[in-house]
Amino acid sequence: MAPGKGCCSPLSDCFFEYESAKVIVIRSKCVGLINRLIQASIVGYVIGYVCVIQQGYQETDSVISSVTTKVKGTALAKIPNLGEQVFDVADYIIPPQGENSFFVLTNLIVTQNQTQSTCPELPNPSTICTSDSDCTAGFKDVRSNGIQTGKCMNYSDTVKTCEVRAWCDLEIDTYLPKPALLRDAEEFTVLIKNSIRYPKFSFQKRNILPHINSSYLKQCTFNRQTDPDCPIFRLKDIVAEAKEDFQDMAVYGGVMGILIDWTCDLDMSEHKCIPKYSFRRLDNKNPQNNVAPGYNFRFAKYYKDCDDSDIRTLFKAYGIRFDVIVFGKAGKFNMVPTLVNIGAALSFLSLVNAVSDWVALTFLPKRKYYSKHKYTYLDEDDDMEGTVYGTQ
Amino acid sequence: MAPGKGCCSPLSDCFFEYESAKVIVIRSKCVGLINRLIQASIVGYVIGYVCVIQQGYQETDSVISSVTTKVKGTALAKIPNLGEQVFDVADYIIPPQGENSFFVLTNLIVTQNQTQSTCPELPNPSTICTSDSDCTAGFKDVRSNGIQTGKCMNYSDTVKTCEVRAWCDLEIDTYLPKPALLRDAEEFTVLIKNSIRYPKFSFQKRNILPHINSSYLKQCTFNRQTDPDCPIFRLKDIVAEAKEDFQDMAVYGGVMGILIDWTCDLDMSEHKCIPKYSFRRLDNKNPQNNVAPGYNFRFAKYYKDCDDSDIRTLFKAYGIRFDVIVFGKAGKFNMVPTLVNIGAALSFLSLVNAVSDWVALTFLPKRKYYSKHKYTYLDEDDDMEGTVYGTQ
Amino acid sequence: MAPGKGCCSPLSDCFFEYESAKVIVIRSKCVGLINRLIQASIVGYVIGYVCVIQQGYQETDSVISSVTTKVKGTALAKIPNLGEQVFDVADYIIPPQGENSFFVLTNLIVTQNQTQSTCPELPNPSTICTSDSDCTAGFKDVRSNGIQTGKCMNYSDTVKTCEVRAWCDLEIDTYLPKPALLRDAEEFTVLIKNSIRYPKFSFQKRNILPHINSSYLKQCTFNRQTDPDCPIFRLKDIVAEAKEDFQDMAVYGGVMGILIDWTCDLDMSEHKCIPKYSFRRLDNKNPQNNVAPGYNFRFAKYYKDCDDSDIRTLFKAYGIRFDVIVFGKAGKFNMVPTLVNIGAALSFLSLVNAVSDWVALTFLPKRKYYSKHKYTYLDEDDDMEGTVYGTQ
Repeated sequence: MAPGKGCCSPLSDCFFEYESAKVIVIRSKCVGLINRLIQASIVGYVIGYVCVIQQGYQETDSVISSVTTKVKGTALAKIPNLGEQVFDVADYIIPPQGENSFFVLTNLIVTQNQTQSTCPELPNPSTICTSDSDCTAGFKDVRSNGIQTGKCMNYSDTVKTCEVRAWCDLEIDTYLPKPALLRDAEEFTVLIKNSIRYPKFSFQKRNILPHINSSYLKQCTFNRQTDPDCPIFRLKDIVAEAKEDFQDMAVYGGVMGILIDWTCDLDMSEHKCIPKYSFRRLDNKNPQNNVAPGYNFRFAKYYKDCDDSDIRTLFKAYGIRFDVIVFGKAGKFNMVPTLVNIGAALSFLSLVNAVSDWVALTFLPKRKYYSKHKYTYLDEDDDMEGTVYGTQ
Repeated sequence: MAPGKGCCSPLSDCFFEYESAKVIVIRSKCVGLINRLIQASIVGYVIGYVCVIQQGYQETDSVISSVTTKVKGTALAKIPNLGEQVFDVADYIIPPQGENSFFVLTNLIVTQNQTQSTCPELPNPSTICTSDSDCTAGFKDVRSNGIQTGKCMNYSDTVKTCEVRAWCDLEIDTYLPKPALLRDAEEFTVLIKNSIRYPKFSFQKRNILPHINSSYLKQCTFNRQTDPDCPIFRLKDIVAEAKEDFQDMAVYGGVMGILIDWTCDLDMSEHKCIPKYSFRRLDNKNPQNNVAPGYNFRFAKYYKDCDDSDIRTLFKAYGIRFDVIVFGKAGKFNMVPTLVNIGAALSFLSLVNAVSDWVALTFLPKRKYYSKHKYTYLDEDDDMEGTVYGTQ
Repeated sequence: MAPGKGCCSPLSDCFFEYESAKVIVIRSKCVGLINRLIQASIVGYVIGYVCVIQQGYQETDSVISSVTTKVKGTALAKIPNLGEQVFDVADYIIPPQGENSFFVLTNLIVTQNQTQSTCPELPNPSTICTSDSDCTAGFKDVRSNGIQTGKCMNYSDTVKTCEVRAWCDLEIDTYLPKPALLRDAEEFTVLIKNSIRYPKFSFQKRNILPHINSSYLKQCTFNRQTDPDCPIFRLKDIVAEAKEDFQDMAVYGGVMGILIDWTCDLDMSEHKCIPKYSFRRLDNKNPQNNVAPGYNFRFAKYYKDCDDSDIRTLFKAYGIRFDVIVFGKAGKFNMVPTLVNIGAALSFLSLVNAVSDWVALTFLPKRKYYSKHKYTYLDEDDDMEGTVYGTQ
């Protein structure tokens, strides 16, 4: 009996036999062309789209990055009831060092000489009182500045509010300096050092490119046209590139993203693998649903009084937080994705015949004649001879 | 002679010829059904599993995120030998601003008025001494609090230990307040603002969804059932959702993960792309192998004495660090993965015939008759006539 | 008429018919072997390369991690015009807690008792003056330490510079202590706790492996040979493993990467999924294009004078920032990639015939005879009989 494709006896036959399909060659311009065209288009797709555009022949790895930042500049600010003050790096960078993110102080509300004591709450519907009976000792909620003592005190000549145990006097942050106190911050510059790795390809690089020399770095500032490789950025430029106005942002604060895109094709020369900088504002400026707009936080400097009791100066710090976001994928030729993509495309070639057959046997004038030669019908109930003749 | 599939002479023939396989059509319910069933199952797999379940037709991108957090609340704590103190944001958030992570102080050990001087070490096997000869000037190891002076001093009436040069008096952290000093911290709330981007699809969104209005945000707190979209979380709820007890955690500290899952199918409407919040404890609570359990760190506030010498107050701060972990993948229809998946599945169709052939030519009653028509044997040593008859 | 592959009338036929290609079986060792060899190589590729080496049958997920660090150790440093000082954790870890990164102070320049006042600028080409006319009141640039008052003052007996409003006296950072003041820092140890998750597989683990017990953790330090699982690292060892010298690095500072690789094959036992530690320096030590080499930043401690005016002590802090970089991919068997890879490979099998055909019909002695049986030529303009004979 005859061996099926899969199994064979005796096994040896497998290796010394070769099966090749019998085919009818239809000499027809029409079908021939259709057939070739579809095949061509598939091959075209593989080469053109998969390989060239989508680079389906590459395996990818995502970036591992390390960032250090150094801000330079000084500003003169006139602080209400504190007078003029010079702010340098140690004053306006909080915390003094950030990993992928640094905060530049641009505006602030200072409340000096707070002590642990008691004072009337800030007036608001839930704190205004007429007599002690309106205040409950020990009461506090998320919005209150301290723990109520139960007394009702004069907040001002006109208003009485419940007394609280807190850092007194309480901060009054209703009035926010405008323009921002450290408006000069727009002139500050930041040097961003970023070194990245693609562990899978053990490839590493830094954003200070080899062709850049020290003297250039000492005086350059980033400019998309003239100095696209300089890693020193003027804060004003960063904000401007994001289509924002620094002075507006300085008043209420905000979050800026410094995006560094390290997308690289490692099949090309290393020199082509360079960072692309882009800047965008990460917090919503003025959305309809705005709670706690801008960006600010509170911190305090603690002192000891002569009588050794704690005093603090509270700062509500408004400013711009710059998040350095490094991302990117590197691609490099790899056997598996290549063969997967090509293989997948190949399997479409098998569909071509289905189409061409259908055309040939449905539309061509001599379709009957073709199919007669293509098909041999074997009915289970035929006797052999019958069908054999059937094919002639 | 006849052209092979690949090469052809004259070339023109290629385009005006079309090859179609000769086939025998076996009219057999059995094999026919088998054949169709397998084909159906493969097509079913492609559509059902690859496309619907695994969405193999999509290319994916991973999220880029930016987070800001703002904690609200005040707590009254009775500090040992310091009396009652009010803690507000500036006091219990350390450092004052975090990027993806913020720390809430819940418990602390205060050591006041430390100065650079000398004092007896804390007693432990390596520091207890009987005479100066047991102490070596200049000796220190990783666990010691200072550099030994070589003297042996009374630590207490009963114990003598080597004297060290250090910030004296040394901190004694054996006794940890229980319940935690800032147990009220459970009522604090945190507003988490998170804006994300999928650069590949230039898609961006924030966790404050458009349909949320300011008035709602001013008073809502997150609740999985009633307020699943509110970005303001009560610390107690976060811990509770992770099946932990806030008060236990407050004593020794710990690390909580606030996981925000932005997995999105961008082929659907944008409105369907919303963050899913989940909470889990990231540090092991009580594993068998527990070193430095919980979460704590030391920091100091520095003062100047009247005589201008440095004094510091050392804080061993226990508390909960909340790491905001943003993750997720976005998928969008793309030609390459689609064709790859379908193509791959198609190629399985070619296997179907192998199976059906095997069935037809092994089990069917008229297998001999089928195979006689299917196969034409051509032996290298046959003369032509011989084999031609061989097929009849 | 006969049904085409795709469509069929009446439809029922589809299910009760089965088409199988007619084939000629060439009994030729040569072609047979070629055919089998190619097939074998393809199957070999799928099993060997795709499955075994590239694990193409796995879907992957990338790691989500949480890190806490705790540094131990004390150092004695002789600060210029400040005398000997003991530094403990609260002094040399800045900020007191880091998420994935911690900074260890190794060297510093202290400028004491700065006040908001006026003093001559540091001499440099742009600040040296001979008379007030060389200074412009209010002038400042990115490099200057303050805002010029317009006066020209004696910086020293020999040099005159423009006076500036700033934190005076200005810091002079030209002389950097060498060897580093906190050279003992090399003996410090850091405990790194790292817990990771692969959300897609809801798999989680920590770098303190289950088989490690507390007593071991209390005294072990990481050593690639003897203690590869101990999560406590001596700073000196970390730097040494990166082929750097700690003392050199301590002087100017730098950035070290502690890479934790969690690449896991989750089809294997969980116990095989363990972290691999590696260490490398992330900043360039001495590149040709070196700006702001090493790693340093400025911070200040603020005091109040007896007359309630602000004084600060400015620190230019040099040190080593350790970035804990956690990465890795986990793979687990999944249907889709498996079938995609196998399917793609299968489709290559269809190419085999093309090759074998070409060989058989081009090189074999009896090629004419084979192709006569393989091909049946049907010309559009033939009459039926003609071609039928043509095949015999």
